[in-house]
Amino acid sequence: MEDKFKQLKTLLAEISDLIAADALLGWDQQVNMASGGAQDRSEQISTLEGLIHKKATSSELGNLLHNLESEFKNLDTDSDDVRLIKVARRDFDKHTKVPNEFVAEFARLSAVSQNTWEKAKKESNFSIFKPHLEKLVEMRRQYAGFFKPYVHIYDPLLDDFEPGLKTAEVQGIFDGLRPKQVALIKAIKEKPQVKSDFLRLNYPEKGQWDFGVEVITAFGYDWNRGRQDKSVHPFTTGFGLNDVRITTRVSDDYLNPALFGTMHECGHALYEQGIDQKYKRTPIAGGVSDAVHESQSRMWENLVGRSFAFWKHFYPRLKEFFPSQLGNIELDTFYKGINIVEPSFIRVEADEATYNLHIMLRLELEIALIEGSLSVADLPAAWNAKMKEYLGITPANDAEGVLQDVHWSCGLFGYFPTYALGNLISAQLWETLRRDLTDLDAQIEKGKFTDLLDWLHKNVHQYGAKYEPQELVQKITGSKINPDAYIRYLQDKFSKIYGLD
Amino acid sequence: MEDKFKQLKTLLAEISDLIAADALLGWDQQVNMASGGAQDRSEQISTLEGLIHKKATSSELGNLLHNLESEFKNLDTDSDDVRLIKVARRDFDKHTKVPNEFVAEFARLSAVSQNTWEKAKKESNFSIFKPHLEKLVEMRRQYAGFFKPYVHIYDPLLDDFEPGLKTAEVQGIFDGLRPKQVALIKAIKEKPQVKSDFLRLNYPEKGQWDFGVEVITAFGYDWNRGRQDKSVHPFTTGFGLNDVRITTRVSDDYLNPALFGTMHECGHALYEQGIDQKYKRTPIAGGVSDAVHESQSRMWENLVGRSFAFWKHFYPRLKEFFPSQLGNIELDTFYKGINIVEPSFIRVEADEATYNLHIMLRLELEIALIEGSLSVADLPAAWNAKMKEYLGITPANDAEGVLQDVHWSCGLFGYFPTYALGNLISAQLWETLRRDLTDLDAQIEKGKFTDLLDWLHKNVHQYGAKYEPQELVQKITGSKINPDAYIRYLQDKFSKIYGLD
Repeated sequence: MEDKFKQLKTLLAEISDLIAADALLGWDQQVNMASGGAQDRSEQISTLEGLIHKKATSSELGNLLHNLESEFKNLDTDSDDVRLIKVARRDFDKHTKVPNEFVAEFARLSAVSQNTWEKAKKESNFSIFKPHLEKLVEMRRQYAGFFKPYVHIYDPLLDDFEPGLKTAEVQGIFDGLRPKQVALIKAIKEKPQVKSDFLRLNYPEKGQWDFGVEVITAFGYDWNRGRQDKSVHPFTTGFGLNDVRITTRVSDDYLNPALFGTMHECGHALYEQGIDQKYKRTPIAGGVSDAVHESQSRMWENLVGRSFAFWKHFYPRLKEFFPSQLGNIELDTFYKGINIVEPSFIRVEADEATYNLHIMLRLELEIALIEGSLSVADLPAAWNAKMKEYLGITPANDAEGVLQDVHWSCGLFGYFPTYALGNLISAQLWETLRRDLTDLDAQIEKGKFTDLLDWLHKNVHQYGAKYEPQELVQKITGSKINPDAYIRYLQDKFSKIYGLD
Repeated sequence: MEDKFKQLKTLLAEISDLIAADALLGWDQQVNMASGGAQDRSEQISTLEGLIHKKATSSELGNLLHNLESEFKNLDTDSDDVRLIKVARRDFDKHTKVPNEFVAEFARLSAVSQNTWEKAKKESNFSIFKPHLEKLVEMRRQYAGFFKPYVHIYDPLLDDFEPGLKTAEVQGIFDGLRPKQVALIKAIKEKPQVKSDFLRLNYPEKGQWDFGVEVITAFGYDWNRGRQDKSVHPFTTGFGLNDVRITTRVSDDYLNPALFGTMHECGHALYEQGIDQKYKRTPIAGGVSDAVHESQSRMWENLVGRSFAFWKHFYPRLKEFFPSQLGNIELDTFYKGINIVEPSFIRVEADEATYNLHIMLRLELEIALIEGSLSVADLPAAWNAKMKEYLGITPANDAEGVLQDVHWSCGLFGYFPTYALGNLISAQLWETLRRDLTDLDAQIEKGKFTDLLDWLHKNVHQYGAKYEPQELVQKITGSKINPDAYIRYLQDKFSKIYGLD
């Protein structure tokens, strides 16, 4: 048994190494590579991923898991070894239940669909994208079929991003959230608005970059095990636990993208950097789920980075970088400006109070598409109706409506909810950790984040992917994922900013 | 047969892709990676290289080659397909004739030996390194044994870097070169010396970098298929033919490293960028040999970059970057300064006239070690004796003598001659190409390199590794590798600079 377990770990370590190499090929493509290398790089990535797939679906791995599962069945179900086998089994089943030909066909469809979506978005013409989206929906339905039996056809799709979470649970969570968040936005709309135009001045890149570096250094980002670069779309990636890199983008006429984007990606990176080294080169050496990962990025970006306490410390420093732009802007004005609530069409530009509504809209529509209760032909109208209902606005065209996001064109169904769940979890964790760290505001006002990061390491990060998301949230907060803490957070924050009753 | 050939190409393409990924892991480690990632990275590299080795020695590959060799035996031996099989066969034999356990043991020995060598060099104490070097020599002798029969035990070692070249040939070449080069240096020594102290002033990094970029852009480096970064040790690497990257290092108190290092690495890169795309993802998509590769780097660095014609064009531009440092230095003084001949202890700092002697010394010593005619214990004394004989100087200690180079500590025996052979080939090619490009000097004086690069593409680069080095040099110049052109080049150049008779 010892021998077999060692064999398993060796095989998983090899797969981890190949995944790391593949991730580096991707990082380099976005950060460094000149455009002439694109075709060769896609072949290199395809070869690497083919090899990873081969190893991840090998009968060698299947046999090892099978043997070890029966050997380990009487051990403590919470032990690292049992959990490792459980996570490896989950990955193995995901990889083997879907036929290779299906995977290949879906990859082709998704490549073509992305091109078509780009064109459709550019021309704001949904009908160009429609036939491809119909095929994508149909193939996602087929994909779910490989994981029968299920309670809801959307369950297997969701499970790819949130292991163990069910459609009914997500719907329940959002049903509790939606009316309260809609009501909050309406209440805010009736109050005097705040100004934020000073965020859209000329802010030279170097100052933005240097300020961001100061902030995330204070957060505790370990520069000895990572680095920051520029890329068109910011992202976090890692090649093992000791090389976790982030990228950011800087707009020289808008402060927000680099400012909050840097904190956001740093939040993701702090998670990965905080995973216990004993999980190195295993499938546990990653986040629990996309939502739990997002809870970390959103916590540092919003709960910390958009808090009054944070800016009490950092605003004077930011003013030193940009004296002419911010010299006459008071702290209070700045704080309100970065927290402005404005219903808008584009998800990625949405504020904390409206963001989740963009997600719920997408989730409801994609569940309906996958169920078959909504046809692709009716999607644009359904989109616009929900925008009106939740946010009170109607897109002028499909480019700023149903065509805005890349996700569906890549076949990503089941991913959107993770963004909103991440927000909810961040608030649940925040309420819990504030009970332990009673002087957290005072620490943040001094620019000290050590206790906060230690708490997150101890309670969230160290475990890597050992637990499932509901299990982890329950273990830490005493409840499963639910919207109450997030609603309390929004109501408290925006009541003060907008003077709600 | 068609099918089998397709299978072979697919397998070789996969191996090429893995080699590219492995090269990226290495490039990134030297250019980007923070130090905390070192341990994980070495595991990733080891996994990748293990997989490459497995595929490169697989019975699948062996069988394909075996079948295709008999099928192809009546085809034109100069056809691309036949040559591909020949090159693949050579690689396969190299990989399979050496037992895996030997490779692993040698890798361990070489890792330990490098550490020991570093310590020995730091303390200038050869005795620390001696037992490791003895083992390394013994294992290299064993290595040669796997390739029996051979005429000379050094042949198989040399063949790893110069396919097809034999020890007797190299000895013959250098026997012709040595006395003439020794005589030249003695003649120079008796003449009034030139000054070069202006090269060692404060030269801010940015100017050096920008000037280097201008120069290699003029050479024809394709920035759409590569990039330049900084690293401690400059090198060129590629991930396929369309992403060939160079690195450089900049000393802010010495102009030469960045200036000539950048041209040198660009020369390597122009070779790889010039290989015909039809060889993509095959083992032909690389240089013929280390010596032919070095002929390209040395040509751009020395034949072009240390020529009077080059500086007639570029010196005014360099002065614009560094007016205070070079304002009072005339073109003629500058040209002589960058071509100063000074016997010195350290190979990597040696000038064109003395460089080959450093190499010959090493070659003679390593042949003697491998033959067994020289013991490791006697090596330092033998080194110093040859330094005295060839260069007229004696190292003060082993750190600036026998311990200076890393090569032997990594088990690299057979590599040193490629440096000097590269110089010789560069001059042979230069004489040949000047017969075709009759106004080359005039073009270089205008900063035009298109005809030169086109000639090299057409005659050298496009073929990749299709030919063996002697075959290629013969094909282009009408003779095998020989020292005559290089001696003519040195005598002509330094007679003018030093006013020899």
